[in-house]
Amino acid sequence: MTFRLAELAERAGGRLAGDGDRRISGVRALEDAGPDELSLLTAPRYREAARVSRAGALLVVPRLERLAGPGGELAGRDLVVVDEPALALARLLPLFYPEERPRAGIHPTAVVGEGCEIDPSAHLGPYAVIGDGTRVEAGVVVEAHVAIGRRCRIGRGSRLHPHAVLYDETELGAEVEIHSGAVVGADGFGYAFGSGDPVKVPQVGRAVLEDGVEVGANTAIDRGSLGETRVGAACKIDNLVQVGHNTRIGRGSLLAGMVGVAGSTVIGERVMMGGNAGSSGHLEIGDGAQVGARGTAMRDVPAGARVAGTPAVELAAWRRQVAALHRLDASLAAIRRRLSALEGRSGPDAAADRGEDGDDGEHRDD
Amino acid sequence: MTFRLAELAERAGGRLAGDGDRRISGVRALEDAGPDELSLLTAPRYREAARVSRAGALLVVPRLERLAGPGGELAGRDLVVVDEPALALARLLPLFYPEERPRAGIHPTAVVGEGCEIDPSAHLGPYAVIGDGTRVEAGVVVEAHVAIGRRCRIGRGSRLHPHAVLYDETELGAEVEIHSGAVVGADGFGYAFGSGDPVKVPQVGRAVLEDGVEVGANTAIDRGSLGETRVGAACKIDNLVQVGHNTRIGRGSLLAGMVGVAGSTVIGERVMMGGNAGSSGHLEIGDGAQVGARGTAMRDVPAGARVAGTPAVELAAWRRQVAALHRLDASLAAIRRRLSALEGRSGPDAAADRGEDGDDGEHRDD
Amino acid sequence: MTFRLAELAERAGGRLAGDGDRRISGVRALEDAGPDELSLLTAPRYREAARVSRAGALLVVPRLERLAGPGGELAGRDLVVVDEPALALARLLPLFYPEERPRAGIHPTAVVGEGCEIDPSAHLGPYAVIGDGTRVEAGVVVEAHVAIGRRCRIGRGSRLHPHAVLYDETELGAEVEIHSGAVVGADGFGYAFGSGDPVKVPQVGRAVLEDGVEVGANTAIDRGSLGETRVGAACKIDNLVQVGHNTRIGRGSLLAGMVGVAGSTVIGERVMMGGNAGSSGHLEIGDGAQVGARGTAMRDVPAGARVAGTPAVELAAWRRQVAALHRLDASLAAIRRRLSALEGRSGPDAAADRGEDGDDGEHRDD
Repeated sequence: MTFRLAELAERAGGRLAGDGDRRISGVRALEDAGPDELSLLTAPRYREAARVSRAGALLVVPRLERLAGPGGELAGRDLVVVDEPALALARLLPLFYPEERPRAGIHPTAVVGEGCEIDPSAHLGPYAVIGDGTRVEAGVVVEAHVAIGRRCRIGRGSRLHPHAVLYDETELGAEVEIHSGAVVGADGFGYAFGSGDPVKVPQVGRAVLEDGVEVGANTAIDRGSLGETRVGAACKIDNLVQVGHNTRIGRGSLLAGMVGVAGSTVIGERVMMGGNAGSSGHLEIGDGAQVGARGTAMRDVPAGARVAGTPAVELAAWRRQVAALHRLDASLAAIRRRLSALEGRSGPDAAADRGEDGDDGEHRDD
Repeated sequence: MTFRLAELAERAGGRLAGDGDRRISGVRALEDAGPDELSLLTAPRYREAARVSRAGALLVVPRLERLAGPGGELAGRDLVVVDEPALALARLLPLFYPEERPRAGIHPTAVVGEGCEIDPSAHLGPYAVIGDGTRVEAGVVVEAHVAIGRRCRIGRGSRLHPHAVLYDETELGAEVEIHSGAVVGADGFGYAFGSGDPVKVPQVGRAVLEDGVEVGANTAIDRGSLGETRVGAACKIDNLVQVGHNTRIGRGSLLAGMVGVAGSTVIGERVMMGGNAGSSGHLEIGDGAQVGARGTAMRDVPAGARVAGTPAVELAAWRRQVAALHRLDASLAAIRRRLSALEGRSGPDAAADRGEDGDDGEHRDD
Repeated sequence: MTFRLAELAERAGGRLAGDGDRRISGVRALEDAGPDELSLLTAPRYREAARVSRAGALLVVPRLERLAGPGGELAGRDLVVVDEPALALARLLPLFYPEERPRAGIHPTAVVGEGCEIDPSAHLGPYAVIGDGTRVEAGVVVEAHVAIGRRCRIGRGSRLHPHAVLYDETELGAEVEIHSGAVVGADGFGYAFGSGDPVKVPQVGRAVLEDGVEVGANTAIDRGSLGETRVGAACKIDNLVQVGHNTRIGRGSLLAGMVGVAGSTVIGERVMMGGNAGSSGHLEIGDGAQVGARGTAMRDVPAGARVAGTPAVELAAWRRQVAALHRLDASLAAIRRRLSALEGRSGPDAAADRGEDGDDGEHRDD
């Protein structure tokens, strides 16, 4: 199946610059694409790779279109110029790589509990295990080895990849995707401390993932301790993320890989947490806030704020901290030289003063 | 099933303040509880939520009881005043939410190896797989898809949630709970480095979890390289934690989510490691020590010490570091102003001196 | 089965110091070994444990051989002196602990898709599920509950532990080992952002692990977004590691536990990343570079460089930063004392100047 480049440009919401009749049969990375395939260049870092690529056509962002000028790395290329290359890919890739969705039906090895409702259009793969009283709605795909507890609801069109696990009472909205090894609804970390060993506080709430949530491989989202842990619609959660009990996340927020959210934190809408960012418990992170990679929110983060560092501070302040720390030795040395110069001009008293100063001695030991 | 509030107060070890005859049918979060349910208020942060809650009665800590005074958020509420609300919950919740424990018996799809001893009171769920020579004691629950290796021992009353995995020779004491996706006894990270590729050092030890240990979802506890990795009785380990080979942890210690303990570290009793805290290998962390969230012990931590930061220092010192770093730019600027003032009074020599000082120039570039 | 100590010394590539005729039946940790067993001492930290050990013989490094002198902790011991004890163990342990490899054959409960090629010497364990069109080569071991997608290739001699998961199109070279709960080839974290909710960019590439790669428990290695994620031959990856889409790692690199590598980063050969080290996306980390535990590469790292900290800087610079930060309060206090002394000599103007300086006031509030 092939498409005219002009048609792809239109579907991508982009502008054609080149031969619209070129036939395209796929989309591949720069180093893999051939003459009948489309690739993309979105950062100057990869311009040389684009130059030597055998790709028949390229998606580019407007600021890189200048490379198509005489002598540029893209000279002579057929281009599709798009403002948002990721959005263009999201539109084009399904043309060439339609989702392989298994057929409706229940594999003979699937174990379905009592009182379950399984929509006939759903797919239950080999060795799937569904607990009593669970409802699986239309078009759901439950792949091999998925274990779903009792009294769960799996909303229309959701997909659970092999080895996903849902504990009892977990609720998934429509079009939720859970990747392999993710565990939703396990007990939170709740213990009481008396004089002896820690005493477990039963975790009797549940976990709810609203419509369109995606959960990455080996991520853990705990059930509420008494109430709910709730992940808002369209949230995207990457691999190996920890979401503690009673956390609430608003619509469309993103948690990158290895993010850790301690319990009872309220995260707003369209919040972005970078790789291995974290949050203490019982905080509020406002709508649209961003916590940079490796940053740790230890206080509330206002809506729209961008923070970084541990403990997290406003992004610009963190950058100043980092810069100041990098040159700290040099800064202090310069200050000391100026002090010494002043003290030298001031006579013997200054030298006596320095003699009492343990700091300089420590510094020289370094 | 309902209980009189006076009875609940007594079972919780608390003091009744209000109508002891009120009937209570459950315990729920402030926003979910109804007039016949108990909820709790343990932090001032949630006092407004308590005020508008429909809960029939509240567990409160003594310092918040004053809110029950005239005009307070809790005015007119029936209260149970408890010193340790978590302990109260640990006592009360099982009344309303008894554990659902599957019936004794071996599911027909469970695969049991040769020479195993499975106590007749144990439950083996669908698709559980048990290796040769493993012993499963009384009252154990092995849920769906659990894979247990050869020559393991699963102590009395332990519970393994779906998809827990134990490698060969793993030993669990009594009343151990392993959550879904946790892997106990996998190979540690041990390689030899010669001139060529890394060479694997076989990991021939084992992992032992003593009585009452709880292990969170997707946590990994490696076997010993030669000897044991041992987690002491009543230790509680959260989700996505890494415990390296040969680690030994004393009784009643807590490792919060995403903690990482490198190999051969000896952790004492009642140690607390906060979220994503870590430890280098071959250290000793003394009894009762605490490593703050995100902190990294890179040296031994004395018993009872509280440390934080990376590398971890004493908690108060870390707080001073953080504070000093936050105002570092301002501190240095103030010092430079004072220097300039002094130099200005000292004539042209001072200006010449500043000209040699690369630090100030760098600072202006910021 | 026992061996003469002299033979073990020869096989270990070491030098015998003591009774070569001593019979050895195993290798165990210092605290567990008995008189017919070999143990090892590689760090002075454990010299007292060595002294009281019942081990019949010890592997030691040359610099500790002096402890065998009169009155030393190893006096009278039979020793094997080796330069590389890990390499010695790698050679000796298989003598005593041969790998238990399950027999060839397909368990009757294994589900094999259409068009698969399963070599007759391979083992497929109970409840293994293999997708259509996958090839399993000679000597492969696929343990219980492993789920392998469609059109995968599992190279000769590879071993997949229980509950390993491979998504469609994943390719494993020869002698690859995947531990339990690891997920290879899941979707990367790719979304487009328009005015509304995040839009998923289909992840249509694949993951390739070359010969001799080992992957730890619960690690996640994403497929490429368009092209490949590729882990070079002989790379060793520990537990709970995240490898983002399009990452490429060169031969023989090591990623310790909880390392996180964001997408599209190119990691060279023999790179070492310490525990919970990380890397931003789209970087290059050169051959032989080392990123210290908890360090975060936020810029390219040159070949051979050793970096640490967040953001990572050269190791020596990081150590200076840490040291400077630890004494920062003291350093600034000493500088301020010198300033005050100078200002005091300069008369009333200096005092006025200090009055304008908000920094000192802030400092006193600390």
